[in-house]
Amino acid sequence: MVESKVKDKSLAAKGKLQIEWAESHMPVLMAIRERFIREKPLKGIRIAASLHVTKETAVLVKTLAAGGAEVYLAPSNPLSTQDDVAAALVEEGIHVYAWKGMNNREYYNAIGFAISSEPDITLDDGGDVAGTLHKLALGITDESVKYALEVAGNRDYVGLTRKILGGTEETTTGVIRFRAMEKDGKLMYPIIAVNDSYTKYLFDNRYGTGQSTWDGIIRATNLLIAGKVIVVAGYGWVGRGVAMRAKGLGARRVIVTEVNPIRALEAVFEGFEVMPMSEAAEVGDIFITATGDIRVITLNHMLKMKDGAVLANTGHFNVEIDVEALEKNAKSKREIRPYVVEYLLPNGRKIYLIAEGRLVNLSAAEGHPSEVMDMSFSNQALAAEYILRNKGKLTPRVYRLPQEIDEEIARLKLTAMGVRFDSLTEEQAKYISSWETGT
Amino acid sequence: MVESKVKDKSLAAKGKLQIEWAESHMPVLMAIRERFIREKPLKGIRIAASLHVTKETAVLVKTLAAGGAEVYLAPSNPLSTQDDVAAALVEEGIHVYAWKGMNNREYYNAIGFAISSEPDITLDDGGDVAGTLHKLALGITDESVKYALEVAGNRDYVGLTRKILGGTEETTTGVIRFRAMEKDGKLMYPIIAVNDSYTKYLFDNRYGTGQSTWDGIIRATNLLIAGKVIVVAGYGWVGRGVAMRAKGLGARRVIVTEVNPIRALEAVFEGFEVMPMSEAAEVGDIFITATGDIRVITLNHMLKMKDGAVLANTGHFNVEIDVEALEKNAKSKREIRPYVVEYLLPNGRKIYLIAEGRLVNLSAAEGHPSEVMDMSFSNQALAAEYILRNKGKLTPRVYRLPQEIDEEIARLKLTAMGVRFDSLTEEQAKYISSWETGT
Amino acid sequence: MVESKVKDKSLAAKGKLQIEWAESHMPVLMAIRERFIREKPLKGIRIAASLHVTKETAVLVKTLAAGGAEVYLAPSNPLSTQDDVAAALVEEGIHVYAWKGMNNREYYNAIGFAISSEPDITLDDGGDVAGTLHKLALGITDESVKYALEVAGNRDYVGLTRKILGGTEETTTGVIRFRAMEKDGKLMYPIIAVNDSYTKYLFDNRYGTGQSTWDGIIRATNLLIAGKVIVVAGYGWVGRGVAMRAKGLGARRVIVTEVNPIRALEAVFEGFEVMPMSEAAEVGDIFITATGDIRVITLNHMLKMKDGAVLANTGHFNVEIDVEALEKNAKSKREIRPYVVEYLLPNGRKIYLIAEGRLVNLSAAEGHPSEVMDMSFSNQALAAEYILRNKGKLTPRVYRLPQEIDEEIARLKLTAMGVRFDSLTEEQAKYISSWETGT
Amino acid sequence: MVESKVKDKSLAAKGKLQIEWAESHMPVLMAIRERFIREKPLKGIRIAASLHVTKETAVLVKTLAAGGAEVYLAPSNPLSTQDDVAAALVEEGIHVYAWKGMNNREYYNAIGFAISSEPDITLDDGGDVAGTLHKLALGITDESVKYALEVAGNRDYVGLTRKILGGTEETTTGVIRFRAMEKDGKLMYPIIAVNDSYTKYLFDNRYGTGQSTWDGIIRATNLLIAGKVIVVAGYGWVGRGVAMRAKGLGARRVIVTEVNPIRALEAVFEGFEVMPMSEAAEVGDIFITATGDIRVITLNHMLKMKDGAVLANTGHFNVEIDVEALEKNAKSKREIRPYVVEYLLPNGRKIYLIAEGRLVNLSAAEGHPSEVMDMSFSNQALAAEYILRNKGKLTPRVYRLPQEIDEEIARLKLTAMGVRFDSLTEEQAKYISSWETGT
Repeated sequence: MVESKVKDKSLAAKGKLQIEWAESHMPVLMAIRERFIREKPLKGIRIAASLHVTKETAVLVKTLAAGGAEVYLAPSNPLSTQDDVAAALVEEGIHVYAWKGMNNREYYNAIGFAISSEPDITLDDGGDVAGTLHKLALGITDESVKYALEVAGNRDYVGLTRKILGGTEETTTGVIRFRAMEKDGKLMYPIIAVNDSYTKYLFDNRYGTGQSTWDGIIRATNLLIAGKVIVVAGYGWVGRGVAMRAKGLGARRVIVTEVNPIRALEAVFEGFEVMPMSEAAEVGDIFITATGDIRVITLNHMLKMKDGAVLANTGHFNVEIDVEALEKNAKSKREIRPYVVEYLLPNGRKIYLIAEGRLVNLSAAEGHPSEVMDMSFSNQALAAEYILRNKGKLTPRVYRLPQEIDEEIARLKLTAMGVRFDSLTEEQAKYISSWETGT
Repeated sequence: MVESKVKDKSLAAKGKLQIEWAESHMPVLMAIRERFIREKPLKGIRIAASLHVTKETAVLVKTLAAGGAEVYLAPSNPLSTQDDVAAALVEEGIHVYAWKGMNNREYYNAIGFAISSEPDITLDDGGDVAGTLHKLALGITDESVKYALEVAGNRDYVGLTRKILGGTEETTTGVIRFRAMEKDGKLMYPIIAVNDSYTKYLFDNRYGTGQSTWDGIIRATNLLIAGKVIVVAGYGWVGRGVAMRAKGLGARRVIVTEVNPIRALEAVFEGFEVMPMSEAAEVGDIFITATGDIRVITLNHMLKMKDGAVLANTGHFNVEIDVEALEKNAKSKREIRPYVVEYLLPNGRKIYLIAEGRLVNLSAAEGHPSEVMDMSFSNQALAAEYILRNKGKLTPRVYRLPQEIDEEIARLKLTAMGVRFDSLTEEQAKYISSWETGT
Repeated sequence: MVESKVKDKSLAAKGKLQIEWAESHMPVLMAIRERFIREKPLKGIRIAASLHVTKETAVLVKTLAAGGAEVYLAPSNPLSTQDDVAAALVEEGIHVYAWKGMNNREYYNAIGFAISSEPDITLDDGGDVAGTLHKLALGITDESVKYALEVAGNRDYVGLTRKILGGTEETTTGVIRFRAMEKDGKLMYPIIAVNDSYTKYLFDNRYGTGQSTWDGIIRATNLLIAGKVIVVAGYGWVGRGVAMRAKGLGARRVIVTEVNPIRALEAVFEGFEVMPMSEAAEVGDIFITATGDIRVITLNHMLKMKDGAVLANTGHFNVEIDVEALEKNAKSKREIRPYVVEYLLPNGRKIYLIAEGRLVNLSAAEGHPSEVMDMSFSNQALAAEYILRNKGKLTPRVYRLPQEIDEEIARLKLTAMGVRFDSLTEEQAKYISSWETGT
Repeated sequence: MVESKVKDKSLAAKGKLQIEWAESHMPVLMAIRERFIREKPLKGIRIAASLHVTKETAVLVKTLAAGGAEVYLAPSNPLSTQDDVAAALVEEGIHVYAWKGMNNREYYNAIGFAISSEPDITLDDGGDVAGTLHKLALGITDESVKYALEVAGNRDYVGLTRKILGGTEETTTGVIRFRAMEKDGKLMYPIIAVNDSYTKYLFDNRYGTGQSTWDGIIRATNLLIAGKVIVVAGYGWVGRGVAMRAKGLGARRVIVTEVNPIRALEAVFEGFEVMPMSEAAEVGDIFITATGDIRVITLNHMLKMKDGAVLANTGHFNVEIDVEALEKNAKSKREIRPYVVEYLLPNGRKIYLIAEGRLVNLSAAEGHPSEVMDMSFSNQALAAEYILRNKGKLTPRVYRLPQEIDEEIARLKLTAMGVRFDSLTEEQAKYISSWETGT
């Protein structure tokens, strides 16, 4: 067995307090943990997880362990690990291979570490464990696979992957990939698209990322948002949250860029400006990408920007801003503040890139607040249980969790927040589902 | 043939100016009209429509006529007809049977008038034409059917209904009914759920009703919204729009009531209070129902309300506020202002009901602004064309319009508003649909 | 004595209901009326008033009469009179000379009517009674004076004006004028700047005009505000209210024009765009002037506007939009809807002027809601009482009402709204006013 | 001369980058620095300053030095010093006595250090330098004076204080104290109330504190604001900013407590709830004090709070939350996260106090963003120059900076932000100041 590897085990005490703080703000997941302790639904199961190693993830992982699972935890981003939390988890008996500031090789070593557990279930935030497993099984080799093998070693990956009961995926980005694999007939085991639960994407993506993206940008720069011109690339659920909070923080103009006409029109009616990035580039003060796509801000865009423009990404992968082209073409660069690198462009202007174009909320701040992760990770925990309960019934497809589970999470959350709501009377239930009742 | 019947044909000149005003704010529908004039896709087709007889509907009906159809127009609400517009339409050669302030019998006479055309296609806003036709064909008799028959006369309704090519439905309420009929195996011809187009429900229901509901309430009462406690029943797309604008107008508290836990939770995270109606009743200044369901505000709720409370409904049917119980139990009533009736309750308090609990935006104001109806009615026009183009291919089910039509409407609207947006590069299109591309 | 002159006395019953509706939403003024009935503080006093003849003004005028005053009421705008209310007031024994749609001559005849009462106190909303009296006393002749004299006849205006105990003024515009007169040494009797009370300008100008301006524009045009580009000229209290509500109604861009750099900067930090009108003219969909100044939108600006642009004014006088130049240069014009006139410009584009450039909220809607006028008119009523109480102590200057009166109105209003608030403990009162207490 | 004392001089390089970052976002102050370099208006002057030792303060202090002054800098809060900035300033030749986390004795030692310079001008943020000098001169002794003397030593404080040319004060709290001293006839030299400049309090207090307070709370707790019940004590300019941003961040309810009825009413019309703290205590999730007064949240309030309630203060002094009573009565306490202390109350509930009840934005975050401090500190720099220019003309009173200086700062700021605005035409300037022009 490969041993846990974290930055500094002596940080465990501090990490435990952090986890305790998160636990006190994740009442739904804690209620699930109580039940898991009694019922042990995951008994004897090995789980390989690639998740941001934060205090909220710790609450999930401890819940899975409480349910009887043995968990191997890798990060899902080289910059997002909270080292004190990682240390605390090791002390709790979780297998962890994660520290803040991994390089690319170390990151895929960690994925290899998770894979080395020969898991029954995979848990993903971005799809790196399940994705790498599929590459291994399909015989696709690239650098990431090579690094993963350095730790995981040679095994029968076809057999190993085929017998996996199921996996879960947290992000929009990841789900898009698994659906593409399903369409291509390459998916080897069932995936629960946790992201598609209402109690996940309507909340975590919108309210969680909406706040934490600005938290990251403000911590990194200490800039005032009031009076600024903000450009948000992408008006999916994440982009909506980021744009909404930009307005709530007093931005003078909030400009949205989009490729989908319906979303673009929604943005316009919601009170945002819409224009192509090539125009927005000239007027923006702060740019945030949230598209899930590649090269959304190109070097050409950067060359049009005002002196002092700030760039950040809040999409899952660090591909949205063309950092490579920036690195190649900048005349010089220096770190002016933690997480803020100043690039001197050939045209003499300076622009500022936050957190190397990686997820700004997890790199420069603490990621989503516990209160939204409560719902997202309750979906993760119940998805793991759902996979086991439906052993033998699921085929290699992408699934949503059933609506009842989704609604139950919402109900528990409302109760925990002290919010009471109505229920349909018998007459109302009948009326709404009947077509004979007159006007 | 039954002759047109409107309030006063001499209002036609005024109505024509109104229609011209609407036309200048409905660029997408006008572009469709241009094409219809050239292509005559509806040539020789008879259309029976039950729609709010407003200036925007006039633009739709004239467009259908321009496409070659013969249109029979009934209202879809007894209070929503704009008499000048009705007069103008008659002058344009449309068959119209509508005036503002019909009683129940007159209203269903009008539905009978539409049916008497023996239509190829039905257009509905609330489902009264298609619904009555189904009742006739299925042998269901009630008061509405009786009144409809007074004008439509006896016919082979089974045969007539079976040979209808298709119908369209504009509202959430109507679509729910047609789906219930489909589920019960009672649907006799295909229905295009126009409401389910993104360019309809995301805009018309939210931004259209959001503004026009408040327009109706403010015109009726001239009350200040700033500082008030507002209660919105239902957090569907209409309720969202109404709640959002309540906040935008400065309400002190915006309270949402809901029966669906996920929607309730969304309301809470969006910054609204959620509580049961029985509690909200005690603190609200103005109540607006938007649920599509029956008896959402009961007499018991009314008896808890503060002296001076104002009640309005913006759901399709006038069943959400229990007006019947109010009428029976009030000690007295009087019209204090146009559209505002004061009821003296047994407990000595007064409450104020707007527009008899009917759709407040269409009764006390002019309904949705032209700009949103532009999209909704473009969907209607293209749905009629779609039914013809797919003659023989559609079965008696509830359909959505294809995504391409939806997106095309959005694209035309953006262009008309002078908004430009991005499109995917080849690289981006490939990246977003591939799963092999690395991190 | 000149007799009352209104449109149609038979409207009195309807007007009385309107007044009753207003009374039920003006609790502070009604509490003052209760006291006035008991104390008769205005006994034997003649008041000449120039106020918008609305249901709220009726509540004020009836309160003054209840306090013992004889009131002569002229309008303060040719378009703002509600004819039913005017009729009801005549029946209540008030002297009224007002109807909706007066021409310039009739309007100043009405001012003459008010002056003919030889008042002890003048009440103004825009300064026309006091202003005309001063012109008469100072021997300044212009058309307005000539028309006023047609009804008021020749009198010793110097003597009459000198013995006036005091006047009140409701508007920013009017107060600026009286201060200019004070500075020039021309002011002949004390003026209470009611507008300068916090409970007036912070509420009426901002929340009252903010809502009612949009009410007027939407009633006149039925346009959707969501998605529009709105231009607000002037960022005083009125402009702030209008801009705030534009955002609250979903405008895509809210552009402010200003001449004062501090206000311009505030607008920017509050989340609005600021630019010169010459630039804003090119991008705006709807323009609203709220500056109190002349020719803020010139013909040149109009010629830059997009086809279909809408213009409205919510400043006191109809001088902010250069209607004269528009009339002279337009190729044609027609009324497309009530209150909306279409002008065909020489460049082939059409623009739409609402309510002839007069106060849009009072012309095309009902003016401010009762709830804010409650505070404004409580200030008016208490200002009249204050003038009498301080007879002999006030000199020809512009005064504010004492802070205690202002705070008392706020306190009464909060109580009427059911809002409770804190008061300073003894310790806190001491701490806040002491400088020796340590950190 | 007393020597500088900072935490770690080796942090200077990092501090310099921070200052450079601030300089690039303070264009107005930098323009003033350019002029100061040329004109040396402060040549030979000694300045004693008590300011938060942040990167923005560094830009001010360097500007004063560039103008020829010798500056002695003490902190104005024990927790707000940025140690790297302090180190960098020492390297720049500024006399600094400040580090993060001073105890009470060390803090007043620092004030003594500033006083030991025998200044010509004092600069204050909270009034500690001028206040201590006045106590010394007036013979008032308390602990703070004793500690100050430990460093400043015995001097002729009456003579020293009398010959001071003037002082400046940054905060509302401080200005209230100096006005109280002026009223009591105790003020010994002129004070420029920098806080009273429009370009200070309308921006720094509202937009600066509004954002940075939430920045501090979110950094300390990582809580989600969306869905929370927020209680803001005080609706002055700071409270407004905090309440506005709470709403902008999605709070479910924003409750304001106030003692002034006009402010309370404004809060209600602006869309906030108002209630007494004793009621708010029971429903709030997060409490923020911004009153400038003492014991606004008492132990009794705390005992009513929900389990998990969070308390923070953003008023100048740490007296608003009764921390003393909390410390005495809590059964236990522990630091759960940096800046967050958990108190176990006698009733078994836990509440969380941020940053010991000290200014949360400066303790747990970086204080106001540079962009607003640009204006505030431009006022400080110009106030120092103004004191010198008016040497001999000012008496021991509290002054505002002239309106021209205020407007000039706004103008420079707008220009730096790339915002252009209108100016009055000659005709408009005449119209607005004249009273003869007709309607």
